[in-house]
This record gives sequence, C-alpha cells and structure tokens, in this order.
Amino acid sequence: MSTVWEQRFAHRTQRMGSSAIRELLKLTEHPEFISFAGGLPAPEVFPVEKVTEAVDTLMKEMPTQALQYSTTEGYRPLREHLARKMSEPGIVIGKDDILITSGSQQALDLIGKLFIDPGDRVIVEAPTYLGALQAWNAYEADYVCVRSDEQGMVVEELAEALRSNPKLIYLVPNFHNPSGATLTLERRKLLVKMADEAGVPIVEDDPYGQLRFEGDALPSLLTLDVQNRRDAGATNGYMGNVIYLSTFSKILAPGLRVAWAVAPVPVMRKMVHAKQGSDLQTSTFNQMLAYEVAREGYLDSHIEIIRNIYRERRDVMLAAMEQHMPPGARWNKPEGGMFLWCTLPDGVSSSVLLQHCLKNKVAFVPGDSFFPCEGGENTMRLNFSNAKPEMIREGIARLGAAICEMMQAA
Amino acid sequence: MSTVWEQRFAHRTQRMGSSAIRELLKLTEHPEFISFAGGLPAPEVFPVEKVTEAVDTLMKEMPTQALQYSTTEGYRPLREHLARKMSEPGIVIGKDDILITSGSQQALDLIGKLFIDPGDRVIVEAPTYLGALQAWNAYEADYVCVRSDEQGMVVEELAEALRSNPKLIYLVPNFHNPSGATLTLERRKLLVKMADEAGVPIVEDDPYGQLRFEGDALPSLLTLDVQNRRDAGATNGYMGNVIYLSTFSKILAPGLRVAWAVAPVPVMRKMVHAKQGSDLQTSTFNQMLAYEVAREGYLDSHIEIIRNIYRERRDVMLAAMEQHMPPGARWNKPEGGMFLWCTLPDGVSSSVLLQHCLKNKVAFVPGDSFFPCEGGENTMRLNFSNAKPEMIREGIARLGAAICEMMQAA
Repeated sequence: MSTVWEQRFAHRTQRMGSSAIRELLKLTEHPEFISFAGGLPAPEVFPVEKVTEAVDTLMKEMPTQALQYSTTEGYRPLREHLARKMSEPGIVIGKDDILITSGSQQALDLIGKLFIDPGDRVIVEAPTYLGALQAWNAYEADYVCVRSDEQGMVVEELAEALRSNPKLIYLVPNFHNPSGATLTLERRKLLVKMADEAGVPIVEDDPYGQLRFEGDALPSLLTLDVQNRRDAGATNGYMGNVIYLSTFSKILAPGLRVAWAVAPVPVMRKMVHAKQGSDLQTSTFNQMLAYEVAREGYLDSHIEIIRNIYRERRDVMLAAMEQHMPPGARWNKPEGGMFLWCTLPDGVSSSVLLQHCLKNKVAFVPGDSFFPCEGGENTMRLNFSNAKPEMIREGIARLGAAICEMMQAA
Repeated sequence: MSTVWEQRFAHRTQRMGSSAIRELLKLTEHPEFISFAGGLPAPEVFPVEKVTEAVDTLMKEMPTQALQYSTTEGYRPLREHLARKMSEPGIVIGKDDILITSGSQQALDLIGKLFIDPGDRVIVEAPTYLGALQAWNAYEADYVCVRSDEQGMVVEELAEALRSNPKLIYLVPNFHNPSGATLTLERRKLLVKMADEAGVPIVEDDPYGQLRFEGDALPSLLTLDVQNRRDAGATNGYMGNVIYLSTFSKILAPGLRVAWAVAPVPVMRKMVHAKQGSDLQTSTFNQMLAYEVAREGYLDSHIEIIRNIYRERRDVMLAAMEQHMPPGARWNKPEGGMFLWCTLPDGVSSSVLLQHCLKNKVAFVPGDSFFPCEGGENTMRLNFSNAKPEMIREGIARLGAAICEMMQAA
C-alpha cells in the first residue's frame, strides 16, 4: 500500500522527513523528563492578562472584522505599526515593505518557493537553523556551509562559498539557534558588502534580536544594507538586497503564529502571490490581537520581563555547567536568546550521550542535526528558556551524571 | 532592478500571479459598490457572542497552553471531535486520520507539494475553484479539464481524461465554487469506482457541504470510498483513495483560518512532514477556540441560522434575476452554498459586461477565470451570501442596466 503511494509522490518528497527534534520532543513529553531539547518560550512570560484584555477589546469593538477574511498582505494597522518600529533616522521602512506571515516558518517556505529550483545552492552557517533546512529541502536545495565560530558566521571565508553561484545566503545573526552566537559588527558590514557585490540576496532570520540580556544591540543586516544605499530613497519601497524576518513568537506568544517579513519590492510582490496560494492570509483575528497588544508600546516593557527571566535561567545553566560538565567540555555565554551551545571533548559523541541521558530523564539535541554538510558530532544544543531554575540545576546534574555513566561504559 | 530579480527567481514563479479576483476585489472596496464578486460569508452570521464566551473560557482555563507552540498534527481534542463528527455507522474516521490545516488553502498547497512534479497533470472540473489552480500553479501542474453541467462533473467523460496519466482528480462536489452545482449520487459512485480502478487519488474539497438549503444531503466521496472497502477495517487508519478537505471558514469564521484534511495513512504521514516545513502548526489559540465553540454541538444549531439567511439571499437574487436579466440568459438554482452561476447568450462577453458594471458600481467575476483550459467567456459567478437582500435587489438591477447599456453600445 505504502509502496503504491511512494510512486505517486513528487520527487521532492524524498528530501522531506520529520524533524529529528520534533520526534525527540514527543519522547520527552513525560512530566518526569527535564528537556533542554525544545525551543519553547517560558510559558510564565506569556502576557495572559494583556492578551485577555486585548481580546475583550477586539470582540467588543471589531468582532466581525476580526472574524472575516482579510488581505493577503496583512492587517494594515499592524503593518504600519511594524514599519514605524523598524524605521529609525535615515532608515525608512514603509508598510508596503512588510508582509505578515503565519510564523517565520512560513516566510522560509515562501522564500524557498520563490528562489529555489531543484539543485540550487543556499549558503548557510554550520551549524544552522533546522527549520530553514526543513523548509528548503522541500524545494530540493543544496547547501554550501560556511563555518561559524563564537562570533557567528566566519564571513572571512564567505568568498569561497560565493563562487558556488548560490541563490541565497541564510543566517541568524542574533543569539543563533542553535549556536547562541551573535555576528559581530565588522562581520555584518563585510557580509552585507560582499553579498551585494556578488548579487546574492541575504535572508536575515531574526526571531531573537530583542531578547538581549547584556551588551549593546547591533544594527541588523537590513539596516546596514539600507544605509549603504541611502541615496536610493525609500519612497518607492525598499530596493536592497536583504530579506528580513522576525516574529511575535518570542516576544508575545508562538501559539498565535504571527510574524513578518521585510523584502525588496520585486520580492515582496512575488511573496504576496506565493502566500495567496499557500494560505490566502494569516488569521485576521490573530493579527488584530497582536496589534491590539503591541499598539501602545506594551511589548517594550514586556520584553524587559522576558529578558530578566531568560538572563537568570542562562546564568543558572552556566553555573550548573561549571559544576557538572567534564574537563575538556567548552560552552559559550550567549548574550541573549534561548540557546547555549556546548562542545564535548573530541571523539565524544553527543548522540551516544543522549541515549544515556534519556535513561536519566533529561534531553538535549545532538548538534550534528544542525550541520547540513558534516561535523558537530561532539556538540549539543541546550535550551535554557523553558525550564525553571531549579529544573535547570537538576537537569544539568542529570546530564553530568549521564556523561559519567557514558565514560564508565566506554 | 526588477529584471535582476526576475533572473533570481525559481522557474515555477513564472506560473505564479495574483488572482484576478483578489485584484478585482480591491477595486470594489468602495462603499458605493455592490459586489457579487467576492466569496465572503455574511458577517451577520458570525457567532460573536459565542466566540467571545469561548475566548473567555480559554483565557481563564488554559491561557498558557493556548499561547504556546503545539504539535503539527493539530490540537488533539479538536481532531477527536472532528473524527466523531465525521464517523457514522460503518464509517470510522479516527483522530489520526485528521490533520488541522491553516485554512483549506493550505491543504491544497500541501497536496501540491506532495504530489505535483513540474508538468504533472491534475484532472479538474471546468469551471473549477481558482484557489486550487493558484496553489498548484506554484508546482507547475498541467490541467486536464472535464466538463461539468448542472449535476457537477460529467463523470461519464472521465475515462478519456484518465488516459492522460493524471496525479490527482480534484473536485468540489457540493454547491460548487463557482458553478453552484452539486454532484449527483450516481456520478459520485461512478467517480469513486473509476478513480480507484485507475489508481488516481481524488481530492474532495468540501467547504460548503453543510450549507444545504433544501433537498437531502448526499454521501461524501470519502464516505463512499470507505464503504467500498469496509472490509479493510479502520483500526489502522484510513487506507482508501480520497483526500477530503473541509473547514470552519464557512460554518464559524474564515478569519480564524482553521480547517482540516482527512487523508489515507501514507499521505497523512507526508502531509505532516510537509506542514512542518510550511508553517510548523496552525495557531494553537485558534484551534482551541474552534474546539471550544464546536465541542458541545453549538455549530449544529448555528448552521441552521446560516442556512436560513443564505437561502433567503439566494431566493432574492433568483427573483431579481427573473426581473432584470435579458432573454437568453440562463442560471441555476443552487441547493446550497454561496454562489450562483449565470450563462449569458452565446457571443456575449462577461468581461466586456464587467467594464459596464464597474461604471454602474456593481461587480461579479467573469466566468472564464475559472476555466484552466478554455471557455466560459459568456459566464459569470455571482455571490449571494455577502450582500443583504435590499443590496442584492439593487445590485441585480444595476447588473441588468449594465447589460442594456452594453447592448446599446454594441
């Protein structure tokens, strides 16, 4: 039976499989498990009261509009709000530069649909975000990997990759998933310049940018690109080389599936067509809800609460790591976001370690999943946003114990 | 600038354009316009009070769950509810046979992703639903048209089309968009049998099935297919030949973007993978909201209200057509749904008529848009669900006046 269907499916489905992480998450749903494997925001930071208030307002003042079909581009006041938030002196982003998407995952899918013919190459960081690979595997992309270190993509090594005639350069510049790294200002400037000269668009995926615990915010690649072409004028829309993605998932709530993309005018036009065919529009209700919560600046203060909680959890995890990780293990201290990246001594397999961890009821994601080329066998991604401090302490202790067991078994 | 981008876009984007209807709808947003061009439910039938109540319950009882990420397959209680609703004696649909999608448009996109390689053929009715063409143009489908009449697809002519080695047969069996036609029981039985024998899966798109004003409900193609293989047993999931789509858009509210698909087990597995890459999941909040409204049978009585209002509007439109349409024009009397289909005398172009109509501030969709092969130049789709009775009377009068003007101009 399955065989008959296999013959009916399109060629591209050979590249489509379930994410290893999502399958793993199902295993770790048991309440005794402490999971650092997911990428969930802390439910404690959801602004339930404010959302309730916003829903009340919506259902009192504009119920039929909220429940009706609306345009593919997105709810106009929300797009205007986002345009204002993203604009700064010298940087003009207009509402027509913005498309509301059903999560950033949809934006990745639409970008794949617009740019990737089978066999087309996309430059990605190694490690890179798994959701992008999942989106683009369905369009049969090939990946060209550029190494990343604690300062993000090693842009100095980009020239070689650019010779492969890539369609896109994809990266997560802030508090990377999975690596936690943030791309330095020098590298940002160099990247934007090199991409523009090579005529290869950048996809800047920025879900975590606002979750900075310390240090100064760096300009987005989009901003740097706009600055480089300030003479172009923005009255006719953004005409640069960066497609920028961000989302309400990490600063409001992921269950609403409201995100946005900024794209150059010719790309925006095509993205709207692609979105029409993909889901017509993002939920009117949820867009109006996000606007109602965000319109008077509520999220600016709310983000402070999220930052404080995540900073504490990161610090608790770092302290526990100091205590429980074996000699030779290394990890970073991310300045924001939700993930910490740990490298075990050479030759230690994090996949083998995971088996011991599952027995000890603790989970993480083995790092090799995030390397589309090769490598990362001794690395792991640890999420610190979703577990409370006492759980983080206990979980890292279990992780340490699992490492001891593995050493003894070897 | 645009030219540079054109060279970067994937081959498939040549087939992707904005829907003529959606562009037209923008023109007719002016309040003086009476538009029969859209496909919007009547906002008067949205159950605002019940939705408000459901949202209150949700935010009191399960706020963090509603705002958090959830599984790709969909909210389990909602899938269980839909499985119960769809099951009947001898027909067992399980929750695992059901995937929640972000509107049925997403299901169409996922089906395209799974089945259509460039140049693959899909059998469609002529006329057919435009959203399906939009979804599948992005996968470079070719269409094989089977004529439809007042009893739906002329299944007796399907054999010829099946010789083209098609990947799928797509149809809207109930109160068709655009034709308003309903496929007869004989044709349903014949279709299910022929498709099964040919080994070509059927995509049954059923957004309007519950909006029946008169006459008896007919079994779905899915039901007929399950009956044909009753021996197969459903404990391991549905193993038939039909992919069935339906939605909350027409019985609750389209702004929520909650729909569902039933698919054979091997297809379901792949659809979940495809959906992971496309948007991770449908809004948790909206799924829980739909469940909260639907769980105790509220929609069953609510649908009665919708039926009564739409029946009245259909009747008002039919009476006005009798009064204002010229000799030689023909139209059907749909037994449900939202659309009426009108055929003008041979040689009269509905696109030319539309130009006169726009001057008279009334709009419809010229029928040729719905014919992927050719034909339909003298046909038009009239939506009767969205305008109030007095507006329908006035709008059809304007339409009649536009026809007179066109005749005089000729």
